Amino acid sequence: MSGTESAPTESAPAEDGHDLIYGIDDKPPIGETVVLGFQHYLTMFGSTVAIPLILSEPLGLSDKPTELGYLIATMFFVSGIATLLQSSIGNRLPIIQGGTFSFLAPTFAICAMAGVAEAGFEVRMQHVQGAIILGALTEIFIGATGLIGLLLRFVGPITIAPTIALIGLALFKFGAPVAGLYWPIGGLTIGLIILFSQVMRKTHRAFELYPILMAILFAWGACALGTYMGWFPGETLVEGEKIAAHPAHASLANLHNAPWFRIPTPFQWGWPQFGFAAFIGMFAGYLASMVESIGDYYACARMSGAPVPTKKVVNKGILFEGIGCLIAGIFGTGNGTTSYSENIGAIGLTRVGARRVVQAGAIIMIVLGMVSKFGALFTTIPSPVVGGMYCAMFGMIASVGLSNLQFVNLNSSRNLFIIGFAFFMGLSVPEYFIANPVDFEPAWAANIVNTLGQTGMAVGAFIALFLDNVIPGTDEERGIAAFQPKELKESDEGELAQKA
Amino acid sequence: MSGTESAPTESAPAEDGHDLIYGIDDKPPIGETVVLGFQHYLTMFGSTVAIPLILSEPLGLSDKPTELGYLIATMFFVSGIATLLQSSIGNRLPIIQGGTFSFLAPTFAICAMAGVAEAGFEVRMQHVQGAIILGALTEIFIGATGLIGLLLRFVGPITIAPTIALIGLALFKFGAPVAGLYWPIGGLTIGLIILFSQVMRKTHRAFELYPILMAILFAWGACALGTYMGWFPGETLVEGEKIAAHPAHASLANLHNAPWFRIPTPFQWGWPQFGFAAFIGMFAGYLASMVESIGDYYACARMSGAPVPTKKVVNKGILFEGIGCLIAGIFGTGNGTTSYSENIGAIGLTRVGARRVVQAGAIIMIVLGMVSKFGALFTTIPSPVVGGMYCAMFGMIASVGLSNLQFVNLNSSRNLFIIGFAFFMGLSVPEYFIANPVDFEPAWAANIVNTLGQTGMAVGAFIALFLDNVIPGTDEERGIAAFQPKELKESDEGELAQKA
Repeated sequence: MSGTESAPTESAPAEDGHDLIYGIDDKPPIGETVVLGFQHYLTMFGSTVAIPLILSEPLGLSDKPTELGYLIATMFFVSGIATLLQSSIGNRLPIIQGGTFSFLAPTFAICAMAGVAEAGFEVRMQHVQGAIILGALTEIFIGATGLIGLLLRFVGPITIAPTIALIGLALFKFGAPVAGLYWPIGGLTIGLIILFSQVMRKTHRAFELYPILMAILFAWGACALGTYMGWFPGETLVEGEKIAAHPAHASLANLHNAPWFRIPTPFQWGWPQFGFAAFIGMFAGYLASMVESIGDYYACARMSGAPVPTKKVVNKGILFEGIGCLIAGIFGTGNGTTSYSENIGAIGLTRVGARRVVQAGAIIMIVLGMVSKFGALFTTIPSPVVGGMYCAMFGMIASVGLSNLQFVNLNSSRNLFIIGFAFFMGLSVPEYFIANPVDFEPAWAANIVNTLGQTGMAVGAFIALFLDNVIPGTDEERGIAAFQPKELKESDEGELAQKA
Repeated sequence: MSGTESAPTESAPAEDGHDLIYGIDDKPPIGETVVLGFQHYLTMFGSTVAIPLILSEPLGLSDKPTELGYLIATMFFVSGIATLLQSSIGNRLPIIQGGTFSFLAPTFAICAMAGVAEAGFEVRMQHVQGAIILGALTEIFIGATGLIGLLLRFVGPITIAPTIALIGLALFKFGAPVAGLYWPIGGLTIGLIILFSQVMRKTHRAFELYPILMAILFAWGACALGTYMGWFPGETLVEGEKIAAHPAHASLANLHNAPWFRIPTPFQWGWPQFGFAAFIGMFAGYLASMVESIGDYYACARMSGAPVPTKKVVNKGILFEGIGCLIAGIFGTGNGTTSYSENIGAIGLTRVGARRVVQAGAIIMIVLGMVSKFGALFTTIPSPVVGGMYCAMFGMIASVGLSNLQFVNLNSSRNLFIIGFAFFMGLSVPEYFIANPVDFEPAWAANIVNTLGQTGMAVGAFIALFLDNVIPGTDEERGIAAFQPKELKESDEGELAQKA
């Protein structure tokens, strides 16, 4: 997931699979299938484009628009393959797989590691790929062995809430500072997102479905107008001195330079480099992604009229998320793949739960992932527009995390202490480790400490998980009872009973 | 409030005023009164000492231990006077008044203002005092006119939650970085606080009442031991070069240098300087403090067996908090005064709600506020111990804020958007304004923008307040219905009906 565009389940008319126009095994006519598939593509587009854009600076791609365009294209290409695999032979739910925000913080930490930070784009990417591949193998192992059930026994909403919320909050250096490169446009983007997604939502279906996309297009249009009118000049030479382009300058130069077609290939950035510290850091991202995905499976099954996921379906889903991440690591998206809750929301809104439609969306992703001009197009969005999108999107991730607090007794001082402490340290500890990375022997151990310490989500998750399982508290108080998907618990108990 | 030491109301046996050993108007024997009053003093001590310690760097007191000692003493002195006034002629509830964390962020912003940042301690303090005095006059006006009821009509839990939480979270630069000056001691302090307050809480009354105080004493003792053993050397000269003292070095030098007695005097740091931008920034802190205090009145009345606060009692309480802040501004604590929820918790735990006891505590504060050695003692706590205390305390403030989310529908995408956006921008916008303060004419307007923009709490509060009142949503959904103290609402409506 990465909670953005559309509402969670709330306003979904198709809850519980009633009233579906097309159920999970239905096959809508080919024309409808393509259009509905394209809609899934549009729904996942915001988060999927955001990830490579965010990664461009830490990966050292700021001044390499061509490679950035390739990276965006690879992202869509791999997401399509992962979606196709998941929906066809994985958990077989109509669930879109795409890039995940939960890998961002560990990726920043890896890119800042000694020996990596000094290197160029390719080397940084290779280290990230290595960590993602090792993490993927672990996820595959966890999915194949069913270890995830064991894991979930210790993970309650007190752990989830700060962990997920910190994924969004930890990105605070990317929100206002990027939108503020030129506030009139950054602010316009934010204002339009609020207007479309919150105020005008009920007035037209387009606002309900694509508020962020439409806000971006409008703001981008404003940049184009301003550029045309000469308000936002491009790079110029004044008395021999180079004046940088206006932040809101809309230029399609990158687009012209990009080739029309390019098929992403495995190891396109070189051979991955494997490091234990990088893997450990990335594993924190994997844990967060797995826990989120399981919740998505239940929501998706309910929406699409599929039977309640069994333990086997859940394990298979995780297994195929691991396979998706492995492919992402091999191709080099700088990220992994995970389930997208915004697309589950789209199923609720459209009342179309057909697997076939999601597969059509996947094929569109793969095809467009081979059109380089397409990836390059997104690199031409002016930064303040991107920054405005960040502000709305990252906040939503934070509150999707916070929404888990509804299961927790918020009058218990035990809970308040754990949640608050995990939250605060999740912001505070990275501040320490970024300023004072530790340096001791063996270097790999110091690297692990630094990578984890710079990853707020990992710090918060570890503190909450540890304290929530160590400090005495009832299941009721901790929200474990209300939180765990009932079905999973029951099938667990059933199995245990069988074994006994 | 400043949510720290003891539990809120949860485990309080005296809820609803039943089972009280002493009720609000009771007069326990003099010996008991003093001991119980001293206990209130110990309960408020953690937050009250923390504030001047946090302010020491922005105010330019880092290398002025003598003045810092005076500042701490003044803090207690003023808190005592404010408590005495509030409990005797204000709302007459047994409610301790002390320094408030909600003024910290605006104070940082004021100290960073152009023309202030370059000046020394006295000038910075004078600007802070000016802002606090103007804010106090406004609070007095709001309390005297009953405007607060109008205000509360727009303020729901969706506004409160991010605002209060950001008071704690915005301090993330002070937590781990300060504890991490020497992790063995910083970590020990954190570990002991967790052990005492969460794990051993039920084993001994001392842990229940003073977990933070005891953790500080233990960790301080460890520093003293390490200093004695020579592990934590003081400032030394090695080959003519000055080597700074070990961060955990425990020295009582500051204590020796301080005079025994010193009565804080009005305007001891010079004549306050009044600025509109500083006032506007500080006013955000006042709003947060007022909203919190009102909740405290209801809790305190319930705990101490006093009648449910009427609108008049609430207004009088705010009026006297304004008077307390005015006195704080005149004496120059660099802060204001507000109601302490930890002491309400202590009433619940001790089952003593007598006003007389709180007044005894106030007198102890005033007396110890005149003993300079006493204030100086706290300046000798080694920094990592203080940092450890921050980590536990600021996290608790954050989660006290988050606990307001229990009244909100966390499945509504409207609410999630507003909460998440306010939270994210509350962290992200200050990041922008600290790096890029705006500079335009008139300068006072630019100053206002910079002061507010650097105050995360103000940004979050404004965004949440605006969006929560503008984006359509039912009272039910917004949590307004469940949140507002029923009594206040009823008396409001009663009065309106009378007027009609």
